[in-house]
Formats: sequence, structure tokens, C-alpha cells
Amino acid sequence: MRVGVIGGGQLARMMVPPAVALGIDIRVLAEGEGMSAAIAARAIGDYRDLDTVLAFAADVDVITFDHEHVPQNVLAALVAAGHAVHPGPDALAVAQDKIVMRERLTGLGAPVPDWAVVHDAVALGVFLDAHGGEAVVKTPRGGYDGKGVRVVRSTEAADDWFALAAAGTGEGLLVEELVDFRRELAQLVARRPSGEVRAWPLVETVQRDGVCAEVFAPAPSSGELPEAARALATRMATELGVTGVLAVELFETNDGRLLINELAMRPHNTGHWTIDGAVTSQFEQHLRAVLDLPLGDPSPIAPWSVMVNILGGPTGATMPDRYGVAFADRPEVKFHSYGKESRAGRKVGHVTAIGSELDDTVARARAAAGFFQA
Amino acid sequence: MRVGVIGGGQLARMMVPPAVALGIDIRVLAEGEGMSAAIAARAIGDYRDLDTVLAFAADVDVITFDHEHVPQNVLAALVAAGHAVHPGPDALAVAQDKIVMRERLTGLGAPVPDWAVVHDAVALGVFLDAHGGEAVVKTPRGGYDGKGVRVVRSTEAADDWFALAAAGTGEGLLVEELVDFRRELAQLVARRPSGEVRAWPLVETVQRDGVCAEVFAPAPSSGELPEAARALATRMATELGVTGVLAVELFETNDGRLLINELAMRPHNTGHWTIDGAVTSQFEQHLRAVLDLPLGDPSPIAPWSVMVNILGGPTGATMPDRYGVAFADRPEVKFHSYGKESRAGRKVGHVTAIGSELDDTVARARAAAGFFQA
Repeated sequence: MRVGVIGGGQLARMMVPPAVALGIDIRVLAEGEGMSAAIAARAIGDYRDLDTVLAFAADVDVITFDHEHVPQNVLAALVAAGHAVHPGPDALAVAQDKIVMRERLTGLGAPVPDWAVVHDAVALGVFLDAHGGEAVVKTPRGGYDGKGVRVVRSTEAADDWFALAAAGTGEGLLVEELVDFRRELAQLVARRPSGEVRAWPLVETVQRDGVCAEVFAPAPSSGELPEAARALATRMATELGVTGVLAVELFETNDGRLLINELAMRPHNTGHWTIDGAVTSQFEQHLRAVLDLPLGDPSPIAPWSVMVNILGGPTGATMPDRYGVAFADRPEVKFHSYGKESRAGRKVGHVTAIGSELDDTVARARAAAGFFQA
Repeated sequence: MRVGVIGGGQLARMMVPPAVALGIDIRVLAEGEGMSAAIAARAIGDYRDLDTVLAFAADVDVITFDHEHVPQNVLAALVAAGHAVHPGPDALAVAQDKIVMRERLTGLGAPVPDWAVVHDAVALGVFLDAHGGEAVVKTPRGGYDGKGVRVVRSTEAADDWFALAAAGTGEGLLVEELVDFRRELAQLVARRPSGEVRAWPLVETVQRDGVCAEVFAPAPSSGELPEAARALATRMATELGVTGVLAVELFETNDGRLLINELAMRPHNTGHWTIDGAVTSQFEQHLRAVLDLPLGDPSPIAPWSVMVNILGGPTGATMPDRYGVAFADRPEVKFHSYGKESRAGRKVGHVTAIGSELDDTVARARAAAGFFQA
């Protein structure tokens, strides 16, 4: 049972422990030496190069991904050559382009912020006028962790991106209403090719500078939202034909509605708590799903799980440098290092605490994370 | 932070997931290609060969073990060359020879079965006469999983082993009283070089044909035994200078006493439940301990954990061959495959269930295991 993962980042790395536990032979196509998932790297090469990817795929039973950036022509060639690819090209197309995503979600009647495609400052100005003079502009491709996203309050505030877009794909930019939200939530589900879907609890996510900083599982004080979020994510996974993990990032508006912010078709930062806080982690579930095996129980193992990302820290340091003090202070917290050296703003790991009281669990997770960010 | 593990079996394999999680660079010296811990194999060679082991040790911060069979001359050379070796040679000497173990335990005043060293049938007859005509004979070295252990009821029943012992080391055989026990228990602790010791709950183990078949954690209906077992194992770890995990296999006698059956100085089959049932698994704790890092919380995460070994199964099959039916039936059970093909009596994996009622937890674990042994 061999799973090939394209991309050697921390998401591929975190698939390794459940693969080892289950006896699944995991093989990674890494971008270079010393990547986060190096322990499972069986090949090194460019995921945009068809020959590289086809050669890698020859020795595995299914291809899946650390990221969503493999070009459609490469995906199509894999499928044409008879390889199992999960998630498949049609689903990934929706995650690869934010304009395609908004079109598909709108077509499915899913709740999304007001949006438009704009090609110039004049069109942006029209949108701004209709939305109180402020909006969010997004480049359709390649954005992550806040990159390619900008809040604008004037017609000329995206001129540089319009110039780049015109010189590039000619695709235009996505503009969306600046949602007046109470908080951000995330609903993760996994779906296998034969149709089974399992959902983890709805979680609250705290973003700083566009980057996930903390996750509280389950989302506190949510009333009917969990049921609605689960139904929405399950329908999206099914309608879009997603296989593997689907992360649905949501806004809870101040008037109590859910709006879909983004989709990701892979394990997601907002699901890292499941490694230590759920019966089946998102990484194990992703492996089960892409192999079309029955999905595991996504139930939490404690009333509360809190994940805090390790962002930055002293340049050139690694998390293990601080294990002496951190382990002594918090013997019950689970520490995860991605094998990376710290630099400003870089995600190098995370910690997860579980517990029976939310406030205490938050405090313990933050205290543990603090040892690595000073 | 680099840990070198000598031996490529399943114990080394199960150190890989926590090493990956913590960002510890784990490197295995495997006996051959395709060993259970192959994903972390950095070298292949004979652990009895000094040059092989010294070359392997050159690139790591600490040396530890998948098994206790590395010869004392190799261990001594590692220490002489300045390498950190945990557990160290003096501690391992006690685990490597059952006669040395009995001598040390007796010297420490620890409760053990009556025992003697015998070199011939006449001496065995004297011991049998003094113990109701029955006893257990053990070869001092190399035994595991019931190998090298024989119940005898006549003076000539060990003649073949006496002949081998006389032709070999001349060390004689260990003979012990056949303990009239109520059940078998195991107490696992971990100790770091600077002295900290942490203990998991006392567990009950069910052996079949000398091989661990099932483990119930914690040991049901144990009264004051857990406290006594914890104190005993902590004292043994400290007095013997064990670093890493120490497993103390115990008999609970019909008159309510604890007797030490065996010691193992490494992660142990009776601790596999900790992967899914404890805050800190024995494999993570072993890594922390040999790196002299503060130890993790060994508390259980549920009232009951039950582990069932997968022994045997259809020759040539692997556990993943049956995942389709097993996962569908028991989505909440955790499955562990050691990457081995089945053959009669071979340990190829284990399953662990956790729960709030013992009977139900046992039933679910056994049901899950049953899919692989039919």
C-alpha cells in the first residue's frame, strides 16, 4: 500500500507518523534536499515537470499532495496514464484559482461574500462604491498565509497587481466585500472516492496578519452553527468531488450567518489539533481517504483542544533548542517541530494542549508556545 | 538533535512517529534491507561489529537500542570513544543475562522467585525436590517471547540445554520456582540520566505460549498493587542506573505478593497501549529520556486502554490487506502494522482500543484484531 505525496513541506511530514503506524509505504517527491518531509523523500524534483512527476508516480498506488500547486496539465497527464490522483484535477481546479472557486461556490448556492472579477481601477471603484468604500482584493493564484490578499479603500490601491495581472494571465483580480465578521471558523471534513464523508468538530481560528495563530476545538458558544457548517462542508466536498481532506474556512458574521472564505483540499493548519485531540487525525484520515479505505472516527478525545502555532522565534534556532525548559514547564503539552530553522514569521511548528476547561487549556498551550517565540 | 538506534525492528520503527513529531533526527542501524524500521535506516550492518557500530555512532548525539543484544565489548568501545549510550553498558549487562539479573535483583532485596544456577541434572534434581517436583529452566542469554524458557518436571528434562551450555559459555542454566500466580502484570517507567523517573499505570498482561497477547491498562482490581509496583520499578531503575524505558514484568502471586519475572531496558510490548492511550507514549518518553530531556506526562487519556497483538495470520499476508473490512467495522480502534508479512506466530502488529468500560473496550479491541488472524 504505497502513497506518493507531491511536495515535501510540513503537511507531507505530518502524514509520515500515521503512515508508519498503519504500515503504509509513504513516498514523497520533495522540491529539494532537507525539506520538512525529508525522512520520506524518495525523489527530488520539480512538481511542474511532467517527466519528473510521471516517474515518481510509477511506483505508487495513489498520488496525493502537500499543496495545491501542481499544474493542471501535469494532473491531466497523471490521470491519462492511469494513475489514481486524489484529490483529482477537477476538484483541485477549484482550489487553485480563487475566481473559479467563487464561481463554483456561487453556482452551488453556497453562502459567500459579495464578489466580482475586476480588471482595472475603474471596475474596482464601482465595487468600492457599492460596498461602503472598502473591499478585499485577491490575486486568483498562488496566495497563501495572507499573501496575495489586500484590504483596499481607494480605487488605485491595487494598481500594481492590475499591472501584473494584465502582463500575466489577463485573468483579472478577485474583489470581495470586507466581511464584518464576529470571528473566523473552520470546518474540516474528509471524503473518500466511494463517497463516505466524516467531519471533525467545527473549530474557531484566530488569524494574525493573515496567518493562522491559534485554533480552539470545538468552536466555543456556537449554538446551531456546527450543524450548519458540517452540512455545508459535506455538501461542498460531495458537489465538488473532493477526495481527501477538505478545509472550509468560514466567517461567522456579526448577524450570525456563515460565509465561505476559502477552501483548501489537503490537511490544513486548522486541523493540526486533531493529531493529539481526535481519535483520527486529519493526516491519518487523509491517507485513508485517498486510499479509498473506510474513514476513522473523527471524535475529539477531550472536551477542549487548543493549538498554537510557533511563528518566528530567534533566527537560526530550532524548536528542540528550547525543549529543556519547555518540556520541564509543560509535561502534558504535545510539541511538534517541522524540522525548520526559525526566521521572522516562519511557521516552524505548533503545540497542542487538551483539557476539560477552555481557559486553562488555552493558557497551557500559550505558555508552551511562548518558550519558542521569545 | 540526533538519536541513533541500533536495531531495525518494530521498536525502532515505533520511535519514528514521535521523533518526526518532535523534530528529532532519528537514524537506525538496521540488520538488513527491508527491516521494520527501514524508513529511518541510515546504515545497514552487524551490531556485533565494532567498526560498523562506531562508524554509525559518529553522526549522532546519543546511541540507544531496539534490543538488548549489543555485546559488552562494543558498548564499552562506544563509551570509551566518548559517545553517549543509553541505557549504558552496566545497566544493559543486567538485562543481557538472566543469571546476572537474578543476582542483582536478589542483592537489591527485590522480590523474585526462588532461583539457583545449575550445571547438571543432579543439581536440577535437588532444586526440583525442594520445589514440589516442578520448576522453570531458562537459558541465561538470547531468550525472548518464550524462547529459552521451559517448564520441567524431571531431572533429565533439561539435558539438551546442559549439553549446549557446557559446550558453550559454561555458565550453567537458571532454574526458578514455578510461581503459582494469579496473573501477570507489567510496570513501565522511564528514567533520564539526570535522575527523573516517570511511571505509567500498572497494567495486566495476558501471555499465550510465552508471548504477550493482550494488555489491559490499568490493571483491573489491583488494590494497593499499583503503588507497590511503581515504587519497586522506580527503585530498580534508579539502583540499576537504567536510562530510557525500563519494563518490569511481574507475577501477582495467589497470596497477593509481587515477584519480578523479567526486566527489559527498552520500550516493551506491554507499553504499546501508551501510543494511543497515554499523554506521552513509551516511544516518545524513551527518546526524551535518552536525550536527557524532561519527561512527559504518562497519564492515561481514557479510563481503559486495551491492546491486542496481531500474531500470525495468513502466511504472506500483511495487515493492510484486511484494512477494508477492519476499518469499516471499528472506525475508533487504532491499528498498527509493523510492515511485516504474516507467518505462524509472528508479531506483525497490534491494535488498541480506549474506552470508559473495560468489557466493551476489550470486546472492541479483540474484534478489531480478529480481522487479521482469521
